[in-house]
Amino acid sequence: MGPDSSQDAQTVSQLGEFGLIRRVTSGRGQSPGTLLGPGDDAAVLSASDGRVVATTDVLVQNVHFRLDWSTPHQVGRKAVAVNLSDIAAMGAVPTGLLVGLACSAEESTTVVDGLAAGMWEEARGVGIDLAGGDMVTSTTLTVSVTALGELEGREPVTRSGARPGDVVAVAGRLGWAAAGLAVLARGFRSPLAVVGAQRVPEPPYEAGPLAAAAGATSMIDISDGLLADLGHVAEASQVSIDVRGDQVEIPQRLIEVASALGANPQHWVLTGGEDQALAATFPAERSLPQGWTAVGTVGRGRGVTVDGADYDEQEGWQHWR
Amino acid sequence: MGPDSSQDAQTVSQLGEFGLIRRVTSGRGQSPGTLLGPGDDAAVLSASDGRVVATTDVLVQNVHFRLDWSTPHQVGRKAVAVNLSDIAAMGAVPTGLLVGLACSAEESTTVVDGLAAGMWEEARGVGIDLAGGDMVTSTTLTVSVTALGELEGREPVTRSGARPGDVVAVAGRLGWAAAGLAVLARGFRSPLAVVGAQRVPEPPYEAGPLAAAAGATSMIDISDGLLADLGHVAEASQVSIDVRGDQVEIPQRLIEVASALGANPQHWVLTGGEDQALAATFPAERSLPQGWTAVGTVGRGRGVTVDGADYDEQEGWQHWR
Repeated sequence: MGPDSSQDAQTVSQLGEFGLIRRVTSGRGQSPGTLLGPGDDAAVLSASDGRVVATTDVLVQNVHFRLDWSTPHQVGRKAVAVNLSDIAAMGAVPTGLLVGLACSAEESTTVVDGLAAGMWEEARGVGIDLAGGDMVTSTTLTVSVTALGELEGREPVTRSGARPGDVVAVAGRLGWAAAGLAVLARGFRSPLAVVGAQRVPEPPYEAGPLAAAAGATSMIDISDGLLADLGHVAEASQVSIDVRGDQVEIPQRLIEVASALGANPQHWVLTGGEDQALAATFPAERSLPQGWTAVGTVGRGRGVTVDGADYDEQEGWQHWR
Repeated sequence: MGPDSSQDAQTVSQLGEFGLIRRVTSGRGQSPGTLLGPGDDAAVLSASDGRVVATTDVLVQNVHFRLDWSTPHQVGRKAVAVNLSDIAAMGAVPTGLLVGLACSAEESTTVVDGLAAGMWEEARGVGIDLAGGDMVTSTTLTVSVTALGELEGREPVTRSGARPGDVVAVAGRLGWAAAGLAVLARGFRSPLAVVGAQRVPEPPYEAGPLAAAAGATSMIDISDGLLADLGHVAEASQVSIDVRGDQVEIPQRLIEVASALGANPQHWVLTGGEDQALAATFPAERSLPQGWTAVGTVGRGRGVTVDGADYDEQEGWQHWR
């Protein structure tokens, strides 16, 4: 099969596995963290302080994304972003990605090209490569991304280090993706500010290493919702967390969208996932690093409250529930 | 939900995501390569020489495995084995695994428990952990494994270093999984020697680092078939490879099975995949390390031949073909 037939191919089946891999990986150059890129049994990446941070997230069509709501390019960006956000939440910087792509033999190469281009764009935005992967046949379009990172000599910031007296702070946007989801679910395609946030998150990648360097005692990325994810920190750290309602900003844009839909914008901000913001706890005596805003305090006990009371709307989103 | 209801739960949905993760990860202890295990946004693994080897393979139900042919435990072992084999083929030793599991909310917890137990068994056999992962909903049962490893100061052995004059050698079994597949495809369940090889490969993990230490110039794991995978080495190295038919052992057991099925046992050995044997090239003046057997030579030119001639049965197995 010559290069011409590759360019004209309409389905994954016509292109074949190796043609597809060449198409996704060729002509991309190589970032400094990639010591050995695609084309071998495994990739080799830098792990300069002798440790590697590793996380994986799987996105399934019609569970985590819909191709009538998002373009393949947007799905590709999101699949990488949710993983890079996990790397940032450890206080690490990313070094490379592996991608497992499962799709039907009849899948259009346009979808695969779009996914790949979106993944490359998000990766290159932080200076890393798609260093390896696997492509297989499946009846369900599934994108499985593994992100690797390094700590640059710092200790990882886990969920379990929050201490009573710490300040709880957030970096990044809250509630925007939830507002976008509410808009899309009612059949609208605008306003783009919130719909775009649902399609492609904008995680505050730099805020993770900044928080680690500033002495954050715990950190998590907000994928299930602020209250739900703070619940994971409280449980792992065996502390309680109280969020101050008046410290959690509700953006004017979300108030407007909520008003149009008859929804509660505070609920989006407190429980909406998928913005991939970061939440962390800091010793009270430290000043917060750039991009971080205080939203509450850590106390003794267990559980998460808002202004000292249980927040009784449904918290966050759980799979299989 | 208390621990009792967890034990009695019959479907993934009843157990919930977090209950399922606890069930798969709890009580396993921690291997030395795992610096931070499951329960956080990412795992942290050892990469003591400042580099990490990383590979991912995705296994899809009814494409890569069938639960009427294999138990979930066997599928779990195989999913890990195919990844560990890639690590070995770089000359590396494994340090840890990440697992992405996609399954239906109605999937039986027995399936998930079996998969997890099989993955843990194969991982513990080489002294590593399931250090992290993701569990999501999908209509298609999909197991996505990422294996990480380290080179212990050695250079990675790629596919591209074979030189004319090198000896071609293999370690591990050839043709057994193909024979098992032929048996299963005709509705039989025995002989177990070959059916078992199809269900769970036994890759020669130690042979990879041994080959690297012995100066192997190129290496690959045989997942598509000996001739097909040597073709990848020949192409990447820009050399030709000639396999000596009389040097490739055809086990007596395979001759017997082939005779019963009216099949060609040499074809299984030369083109059968899924045994995850290793093929490598060595300088002719070196003696081969333990577990390795010479099967051919590297020459100038391109392509793979058997006794100097094209092998004209279909070579190996390609996705989407």
